[in-house]
Amino acid sequence: MVRENEIRRGEIAVAAPPPDDAGLVFIGVIHTPWTSRLMTPRMGRADGPLCRIEVHEPWREALSGVEQFERLEVLYWLHLSRRDLVRQSPADDGSTRGTFALRSPARPNPIGTTIATLVGVQGPTLLVRGMDCLDGTPLLDIKPDRTLFRPIAPPQPGDFETG
Amino acid sequence: MVRENEIRRGEIAVAAPPPDDAGLVFIGVIHTPWTSRLMTPRMGRADGPLCRIEVHEPWREALSGVEQFERLEVLYWLHLSRRDLVRQSPADDGSTRGTFALRSPARPNPIGTTIATLVGVQGPTLLVRGMDCLDGTPLLDIKPDRTLFRPIAPPQPGDFETG
Repeated sequence: MVRENEIRRGEIAVAAPPPDDAGLVFIGVIHTPWTSRLMTPRMGRADGPLCRIEVHEPWREALSGVEQFERLEVLYWLHLSRRDLVRQSPADDGSTRGTFALRSPARPNPIGTTIATLVGVQGPTLLVRGMDCLDGTPLLDIKPDRTLFRPIAPPQPGDFETG
Repeated sequence: MVRENEIRRGEIAVAAPPPDDAGLVFIGVIHTPWTSRLMTPRMGRADGPLCRIEVHEPWREALSGVEQFERLEVLYWLHLSRRDLVRQSPADDGSTRGTFALRSPARPNPIGTTIATLVGVQGPTLLVRGMDCLDGTPLLDIKPDRTLFRPIAPPQPGDFETG
C-alpha cells in the first residue's frame, strides 16, 4: 500500500487528538466499479459510471421524495484515509499545500462530498452518476442539491440578514 | 425548547442504532450572529453577515493555500439536532417528506454543509459569508469549492471512465 498511506517528501503529519468528539452511524453503502484506491477518479464526473447507493434500515423511509431532485449531495466516510496530514504533496514533487486547500481524501475528518446525478430510485437503492469513491464506501448522508432546494419551513429572522 | 426538538404531526422517528461506526474530531469553531435556533437562516446567503471560522491546533497549518479560493465548502456538526427522524414536517402542517429529500438539520448524521464566500484570512481565522449555523457550532472540515478546484495529483484510470 506504499502509494496509498505513505508520507511524501515535504508532507507534515501531526499527533492528532482522538476522534471522539461526536459519533457517526453508517446508514448504507455505496457500490462503485472501483476496488482499489489507485483506480478511483480524483473527482466524480456527471457522465461517470452508474453507481448504486443502498440505504439500510431504519433509514429507508427517509428516501421518500428524493426522486424529485435531479441532483443530490452525498456524504460518505473515506474509511481508508489517514487523518493526520496538515500539509500534503499531491504530485509527490516536494511542493506541498495545506489540507484545507485540497480535496484530498486525507483529512482530519475524512468525509467525502459529491454532487451526484440521480438516474433512478429502486426501492432502497439510488442509481446515480458522479461518484468518486471505492466500492463498499460507507454512506453518511443524502441531501437535495442546495441549488435545487427551497426551504419548506417558514423563514426565520436570519434569512433576511445581510452585511 | 418546544419548537426545536418536538415531533410534529405526521413525523416519524425511528429507534436509531448507536452512532459509533466512526468518530469525529472537532477541529475548530464557527462564530455567527445567531445564538438561538429560532433565529438562524434556513439556508446561508452569499451576502449574509460576516462570520468567523476559527481553526484550532494542530490543524492551523492545514489552512496554507486556502486564500486562493474565493469559495470554500464548510462542514460542521449540528450538535443540537435530533438524529432519529425519517419523515419530517417542516411546515408543521401534517404533510411530511423523507429526511433525505430535505436539508433540515435533523438527520441520522447531523452534518451541515455550506458554500462560504471567503472574505479574508487572519492567521487561524477565516472571515466568511454564507453561514447558516449557530454561534459556537463545531467545525469538521474545510475544502475548496469543487467547482474551483482542479486535482493536482496525477489522474487515475477512473478519471476517464464514463458510462
